[in-house]
This record gives sequence, C-alpha cells and structure tokens, in this order.
Amino acid sequence: MSILRLENLSNSIADNGFDGVVLNPGASLTYLTGLSFHLMERPVVFIYLPHKRPVLILPELEKAKLAELPFESSAFFFGDNPADRIEAFHSAAKELGLDGKNLAVEPTRIRFLELEYLKACAPSARYLDGSEIFETLRLKKDESEIHLMEKAVDIAQKAFQALLPQIRVGRTERMLANELTTLMLKFGSDPELPFQAIFSSGPNSANPHAAPSERELQKGDLVVVDWGASYQGYASDLTRTLVMGEPNAEQKAIAASVLRANTAGRASGKPGIQAGDVDRAARAEIEKDGFGVYFTHRTGHGLGMEAHETPYMFAENKNLLHTGMVYTVEPGIYLPGKYGVRIEDDVVVTEGGSRSLSDLPREMYVIA
Amino acid sequence: MSILRLENLSNSIADNGFDGVVLNPGASLTYLTGLSFHLMERPVVFIYLPHKRPVLILPELEKAKLAELPFESSAFFFGDNPADRIEAFHSAAKELGLDGKNLAVEPTRIRFLELEYLKACAPSARYLDGSEIFETLRLKKDESEIHLMEKAVDIAQKAFQALLPQIRVGRTERMLANELTTLMLKFGSDPELPFQAIFSSGPNSANPHAAPSERELQKGDLVVVDWGASYQGYASDLTRTLVMGEPNAEQKAIAASVLRANTAGRASGKPGIQAGDVDRAARAEIEKDGFGVYFTHRTGHGLGMEAHETPYMFAENKNLLHTGMVYTVEPGIYLPGKYGVRIEDDVVVTEGGSRSLSDLPREMYVIA
Repeated sequence: MSILRLENLSNSIADNGFDGVVLNPGASLTYLTGLSFHLMERPVVFIYLPHKRPVLILPELEKAKLAELPFESSAFFFGDNPADRIEAFHSAAKELGLDGKNLAVEPTRIRFLELEYLKACAPSARYLDGSEIFETLRLKKDESEIHLMEKAVDIAQKAFQALLPQIRVGRTERMLANELTTLMLKFGSDPELPFQAIFSSGPNSANPHAAPSERELQKGDLVVVDWGASYQGYASDLTRTLVMGEPNAEQKAIAASVLRANTAGRASGKPGIQAGDVDRAARAEIEKDGFGVYFTHRTGHGLGMEAHETPYMFAENKNLLHTGMVYTVEPGIYLPGKYGVRIEDDVVVTEGGSRSLSDLPREMYVIA
Repeated sequence: MSILRLENLSNSIADNGFDGVVLNPGASLTYLTGLSFHLMERPVVFIYLPHKRPVLILPELEKAKLAELPFESSAFFFGDNPADRIEAFHSAAKELGLDGKNLAVEPTRIRFLELEYLKACAPSARYLDGSEIFETLRLKKDESEIHLMEKAVDIAQKAFQALLPQIRVGRTERMLANELTTLMLKFGSDPELPFQAIFSSGPNSANPHAAPSERELQKGDLVVVDWGASYQGYASDLTRTLVMGEPNAEQKAIAASVLRANTAGRASGKPGIQAGDVDRAARAEIEKDGFGVYFTHRTGHGLGMEAHETPYMFAENKNLLHTGMVYTVEPGIYLPGKYGVRIEDDVVVTEGGSRSLSDLPREMYVIA
C-alpha cells in the first residue's frame, strides 16, 4: 500500500513543480512509511525525491523501527551527542544530491530544528511551502481507512454511552473527562487519543475550547462533551450536549437550533459542492433562529489521521468536496457567561451524497 | 510568578544579544504565560520584547483563555479563514516595531507555519536559534516545581503498584499499557500524559523505544515498563523491569548490572560536576560487567514540563549541574532478539548532592 502512496506522491511532487519532499514525524510520515515517531528533541527526517531511494535520518535508538518499512531505503543514523547529527545530514544530502533542489515541506510540521540541519547540509536547496502536496495527500480516504474511522467512532460512542449513568450533579468536569478517557481505552482506543476530551459545564460550556476544570456539575447546567477515540491511527471526533435537570426555555431553543444546523450541515455534503457550502447550510439555520452572532467558529474540519486536517469547513473555502473526504459538522451556539451547545458528527462524502459515521442520539441528554 | 519569569527572560534576552523572543505553544509558553494551547493547524504566537507590552496572535476561538493571563498584553485575533491571519501578524509587528529586530526562537517548537507569517509581517527581522535562552529558561526547578514533580512521581508509582497484581502470562502489552494509563488517571494524573507508556516484553524489550503491541506475555519474558504521569503540567518518567517466572542466569546478570549502573548514576549527581559525569558513572558499571556495547543510549535526559528537556546526560556533555536541575537516570542493557533491562529514576540536584524523587523497589520484579 505504501508503495502506491509513494507513487501518488511522486506525481504530486511533479505536478506542483517540486523536486522532492522533506517530512518529519506526523501523520503524513506515518501514512507514507508506516513508521510512527514522536516529535521530540531529536530530529527524524524523511526525504523523498522521485526515482531515488527514500532516505531517513534518525537516532540510532530508532533503528529497530526500520524493520517495518515496506520499501527499500537509505538510513543515516546519529548518536546521543547533538554535535554528531550534522554528519548524518551531510551524508544524506550527498547521496540524494540535495543541493539546488526545490523541496516541499509541511508547514504545520517541520520545525526550525530540522530546517537548520537541512540548510546546513544543502545550503543552496530551497525549502518551500508544500501545502498543495500535503493538503491533498491524505484527503480522500479509501475503504480501509473509512473502516478504521468507523471503528474509532464506534469506540467513542460506546464509551459515551457507558459514561452517561456516571454523570450527576457534584462530579467534576475533570473526573468525568478522565473517566471518559478510561472508557475509550477500555473499548479499544489506541493509547494516544486524538485530542484531550472537553467536558465543559455551566458557564464553561460557553467557551468552545475549554479544558476540563475542577468545577462540579450543578443543576441547570448545560454540559458540552467533545471527545474522540483513535483506532490504528485514525481519529473520531464527536460532541453531544447534556442538561442537568429540566432545561429552561432558552436552553431548549438553542439546543433545537443547533440540532437543526447539525442536521442541515450533515445533509448538505455531496461531491462537487464547495466546502463553504456545508458551513453556509449549517449557519443558515442558526442565523434564521437569530443566534448567528453566537456561532463563533467554522462548521467543521477534516478528520483522519489528524484530529484537524483538510478540508476546513469555513464560509470562504471554495475547495470542492470529493468522494472519500471526511469532515466534522459541529455547529454551536455560545451565550457568554451563561452556557453553550454544540452537536458534532463525522461525515464522509459518498458517491450519491454523504453519510454520517456517527449515530448517537443528537438531542440534548437530560440527566435527571 | 510569571512576572518574575518574564524579568528573568528579559535578562537572558539581553545577555544573549537578542532583541526579543517569539514563542508558539509548548512548555516554554505555558511556563511564561500560564496559558496552554495545543499545537495545531492554527498559529498561536507570543512575542516578547523587553520593556514592551507582550503580544499574542491567536484565533478568536481562544479569546476566553486570555482572562487567565497574569500580565497586561496586546492580543491580535484572526478568524477561521486562513487568508485573514496575516492581518493580525501585521498589526502585531507594527505595534512592536518588529522589523529589523533579532528574535530568538525555540528550535524544537517553532514551525515553518509560524516562521512564514513572521517573515511576511517583518521581512527584515531575523529569526535565530535561541537555544541559549530556552535551554536555561526552565532548567532550574524551584521548590514549588519540585513539589509538583514529586506528585507526578507519586501518581506514577501508585499506578504501577496497583498494576502489578494484574500482570500475568497471556495478557497483552497493549492491554497492560492501557490499564497503566487508566490507573494513572485514577490516581490523579493530568489527562494528558507526558508520553505513551512503553510495555515491551520478550524480544520487544530489547528495543528501547518499542510501542505496546498485541504480543502476549510469556513465561521467561523480561518486561520493560517505562511510564510517567503528569501533575499540573509537570512530568514523571520511570522504568522498572519484570521477569515472568524465574529469571535465567543471563537475565539475572544483566539486571544486576543495570541496577549497579542506576545506583552509581543516581549517586553521582551534585552541583558543579558535568552532566557527562553522570553518564560516565552509570556506564562504567555496565562496561565493567562486559555489557557496555549493549547500553546503546545516553544515561538520561532532563525532566520538567517536558518529558525530554535539558540537561541531556551523554558523555560529551560538559554543561555543569546546578541545584534544582532534574533529570532521569536510566541505564539499560539490550541483547538484540533476546531481551532487555532498564531501570529509571528521576533525580534532583540538591545543595549537598542529589536526591531521587522516585523510590519504588528497583530490583527485577518476579511475577509468579
């Protein structure tokens, strides 16, 4: 499979006028090589020039991982003394004839650290924004990838359902977020979750990016739970909203509005429309209800090996949807200082339209 | 506290001949501002020039977090359309008069993404390797930091002890790694662990950086468990080795050798010696036993808000130890294809010498 992926990458490199790509640890590297590394203080660099043997520069400590590599490569190792790293980079640059080349890098991944070693070993090479290449590399998911994402959704859904009976007034956001994490691991999530679960209650729920706090759940709270599991490297990302006791009229109104927006957003996806159309479809419902100013973020983001990836669902995004793209639909309404509601599903574009990978009930969960 | 930290930073900026620093999400940003952000597709940038009001450039979505900031700042926001980001960068550059300045960046953190926005908004500023500043910024831990690290060690130790009765032949590495994670959360770890626990058995234990697999534990295995908790942002990092049943003579010999190396390494730390001296003290024991060639990595690394940070304990490191530095002592012996042993503790340099924060028994754990 990785051989095919390298071939597609070769075409993309040529189409975009580059001579090659330089990758460091992250989803793209794993997608292409099957290898996973943590991004830490030691550089790990993969350089690929079409028609040349791929090159890896990495710590000796990681040597054992190369046994999993599905294609031939040249590997250059360095030891624990940082002063010795540059030699490995020089050898790699020499083997590839890097100097003078136009090399595409992934802007959200490659760091000053790697760039400095590269510039030192190939001073006349150019390291250029390779977004065109990397934003399309993992964009369309094949059937086996969709299957893994369905598993990641299934694990997250089961964990949420198992958590529900444990949610009650007096428990803290943090306690419940930890329990949800524990349940995802129990139901088979990879040990590394795609992101830290959000469990925001009362006024905290009006902050779309709140971290779990020591706040105890209270009667009358809205509670936004935003969580996801990982399965063989693929992520899920869901949100549901709970109410502690009977909701008031305003809470009911915003929950109903967000549900309409989620439904419209999910229904809108199909091949050939713009990513921005999904945002508009969801946003129109909330605007119609008079809450437009409180829907303060884009409708969603792509999902796959990363928790956030292309396509991003914001109004101005004219990129077209194609079969196999997966993204979240997660409209929300946030009333500052009071409460917020968000409902999030994961949607895949199909030949005829689109399909939600997630199917947990979307209505507000009333916790007695 | 953060005000003092900014003052120390100002001195360090001046001492190293820079005009200011540029930070993106990570431990240094959190240390200086108290704010935590995930490093994702949206840039978050903090720029600090001594005697000027600190500047933040960040997504509107993160606005609520600024309430926690312990000093005055200027914040520049951008929305969901990436095309709008550059305006926020331009405004920030204008307020600070960035152009022409010498700015220090953290090589292991700042990405091509942030660098390109910065170069666009301040084309004649220079973005330079600020390692001298960032490697000392969080190097000496104060009492309150040591206290948090002791908590992180305590959580990890309790979790390990609770896991021990669950370890038996037939359980998989992954199952046990997940259970260990669950136990750390239960005993009070932050939801985000400093790193993914290693649980490597049999031949996998000969790979120092193995990821937990579906391999089932077997009689005669050595099992290396390398795990850590996080408490209020501070990490612990421990390793112990188990044997499934009675160890053979070679297993006993390498375990005893590693224990002697761990003991010597822990005992060696004191103010004024070189970091490399700790490596040499530990390595000497293993070399004396004839296993030197199988101790394939440095003796340890600094520990704090990051799982790996300065000081790094490798032979060539001539940097001197000072009171308050914390590092791991983790010698190992790895016999390829057979098994490995590692024993790791977290050590703080004190006035008189050094002290291990961890005190779990270090002998090989015999699992009947």
